[in-house]
Amino acid sequence: MDYKKASLEAHEKLKGKIEITTKASAKTREDLSIFYSPGVAEPCKAIEADPEKAYDYTRKGNTIAVISDGSAVLGLGNIGAMAGLPVMEWKALLFKTFGGVNAVPLVLKTQDPDEIISIVENLAPTFGGINLEDIKAPNCFYIEEQLKKRLDIPVFHDDQHGTAIVVLAALQNSLKLVNKDKEQIKIVMSGAWAAAIAIAKLLIARWVKHIVLVDSKWALYEWRGNSNEYKDQIIPYNLNNAQWSLKDVLPWADVFIGVSQPDVLDRTDIQKMADKPIVFAMSNPTPEIMPEEAKEWGAYIVATGRSDYPNQVNNVLVFPGVFKGALEWKIQNLTQDHFIAAAEALADAVKDLNPESVIPSPLEEGIAEVVSEAVKRV
Amino acid sequence: MDYKKASLEAHEKLKGKIEITTKASAKTREDLSIFYSPGVAEPCKAIEADPEKAYDYTRKGNTIAVISDGSAVLGLGNIGAMAGLPVMEWKALLFKTFGGVNAVPLVLKTQDPDEIISIVENLAPTFGGINLEDIKAPNCFYIEEQLKKRLDIPVFHDDQHGTAIVVLAALQNSLKLVNKDKEQIKIVMSGAWAAAIAIAKLLIARWVKHIVLVDSKWALYEWRGNSNEYKDQIIPYNLNNAQWSLKDVLPWADVFIGVSQPDVLDRTDIQKMADKPIVFAMSNPTPEIMPEEAKEWGAYIVATGRSDYPNQVNNVLVFPGVFKGALEWKIQNLTQDHFIAAAEALADAVKDLNPESVIPSPLEEGIAEVVSEAVKRV
Repeated sequence: MDYKKASLEAHEKLKGKIEITTKASAKTREDLSIFYSPGVAEPCKAIEADPEKAYDYTRKGNTIAVISDGSAVLGLGNIGAMAGLPVMEWKALLFKTFGGVNAVPLVLKTQDPDEIISIVENLAPTFGGINLEDIKAPNCFYIEEQLKKRLDIPVFHDDQHGTAIVVLAALQNSLKLVNKDKEQIKIVMSGAWAAAIAIAKLLIARWVKHIVLVDSKWALYEWRGNSNEYKDQIIPYNLNNAQWSLKDVLPWADVFIGVSQPDVLDRTDIQKMADKPIVFAMSNPTPEIMPEEAKEWGAYIVATGRSDYPNQVNNVLVFPGVFKGALEWKIQNLTQDHFIAAAEALADAVKDLNPESVIPSPLEEGIAEVVSEAVKRV
Repeated sequence: MDYKKASLEAHEKLKGKIEITTKASAKTREDLSIFYSPGVAEPCKAIEADPEKAYDYTRKGNTIAVISDGSAVLGLGNIGAMAGLPVMEWKALLFKTFGGVNAVPLVLKTQDPDEIISIVENLAPTFGGINLEDIKAPNCFYIEEQLKKRLDIPVFHDDQHGTAIVVLAALQNSLKLVNKDKEQIKIVMSGAWAAAIAIAKLLIARWVKHIVLVDSKWALYEWRGNSNEYKDQIIPYNLNNAQWSLKDVLPWADVFIGVSQPDVLDRTDIQKMADKPIVFAMSNPTPEIMPEEAKEWGAYIVATGRSDYPNQVNNVLVFPGVFKGALEWKIQNLTQDHFIAAAEALADAVKDLNPESVIPSPLEEGIAEVVSEAVKRV
């Protein structure tokens, strides 16, 4: 099937993958009296007196914004606000389909982080939560940090935390299968931007002690230079202070996690890893090494971002449930504790754990409920 | 019926009068391939190459924002952003119900005009049009002017132009009934803010030559002081340069138009008007004079904002159709010509023209189509 042609045709036919529909009638004078004059003054005055009442009388409590500046859309890069709309509409569709959450896509013309922060702050009265999407690093870190400080509604950057949660879940199950001590394993990551930093931070918050990030230049190590405050947080976990290229630091690693680019690994890299290598090659659509090649040369477990191979690491397993839980429980601040709980629940949701199934399928039903319950229990 | 209690109960039950629903499926791997990876890259790239394609591949072309800062909500005044949400949701509901237009309510924390302009400008890539709502004067004039200059999508401040269009339609039909020359009539208005200024400007653009605005102090006349650039535009049409109070300038007026406050007129005022007085007393919910009293003392035609009297002047007759037409025809700039065409069409839509029916009922079906066709024909 020609997915390019099919996609253009389907998008043109639909002209929007979501729409607004009405939950009340405006057909009789009584409708007008209840929902407009004179009735509507009552909820307005109640909210003016107590802003919390907005959760009772409006859609605030079940509606979030999906905010993007189009600066890092999928593998397409900085294509700008309007060109990111098809992706943001899809995201909104997934929020509703899997989590029952009303999500409003809002793409912003500006890519200035302070302006984005100010806009979202001013829009916040409308929404019960903010999902940041496809905003380039390091802006995404700063924007998320500032908004978390300034807003009393949950803020979540899915490219960071959604990915991190699924990876933690998949890794937890994988380590069970290879029967290795979680605190002893050595992880090497390829890529050092939004998703990579978030994955590393969450793994460290959970149990990982030894992790080396390799960016487009070299491994991140102390005194390397060319770093930044976000990368610096991971450097202390480069226990041997390894300083060289990906291929130099990978030997004897138990786990490879790639969020970088196609074809950075070959068979010799897999062969040099520790016993029963775990390979998460999540560059999309072309992974850091193709699963069949990794398997052939010794990888025990392989996960990718692709839907045509087993173990698909896909954020849709996470974000609908995280916001469903956060909204239902009015969680003001989503923390690593919530993310760890979500990952645990996701890992436990795998029924027949085996190397081809360390994570639920993205289309499996009921996952959003599992995740939202976990988030609420924290 | 206790509408206050009924309204709170209905709002609490619904928790939002509108919701997001999905128009595509996310249930199969094929859905994912078409609407996400790899398919979605195609509409994204097409829009990046030609922004106009956003109208083909996304919901931009049938989605508008309803923007408010909550500074002038109904008769409630400056109740703030969140307290205005129930009204903005109702507005969105009416847009969909009557015009098939998807409207996203967005209430803003800031009430600074320049900040509002900047926010809306940055949100514009998401939307096919901007409806400004319940923003206090004179900010609303400045915000609308600036946005019209900066954006390539239609901007409409309903409190101004929606009201003005319905009044023009009702007045045109009323003048037919009293058989007076449109260019000779003398109009006195009570109120001199957003709706009043917009009504006066539209009537002048059409055929009115003689109109006096009276604000909370006195009639607007040359050299009065206490004016502003918006009021100043109307002053040349105070032909006699009348300088006194409402009660002083009203005698011999053919038409009274009130967008001010309850009970500013009494029977002696009606008695002193010209033959067959036309009285539009639109203060809501309590008019400038009650219809039965105005009628008793000689008013030939009375219109109000109320649904329990004949001739209800209600913007819902206008805004769904204006945006339906503007979106379908990709009208970038809505002008007085569009508003006049809409008013003509609305006036002509009255089938049995008589003093109790100078304007269609707000709940009459098909009005949005009539208005949208008129807007498109311009």
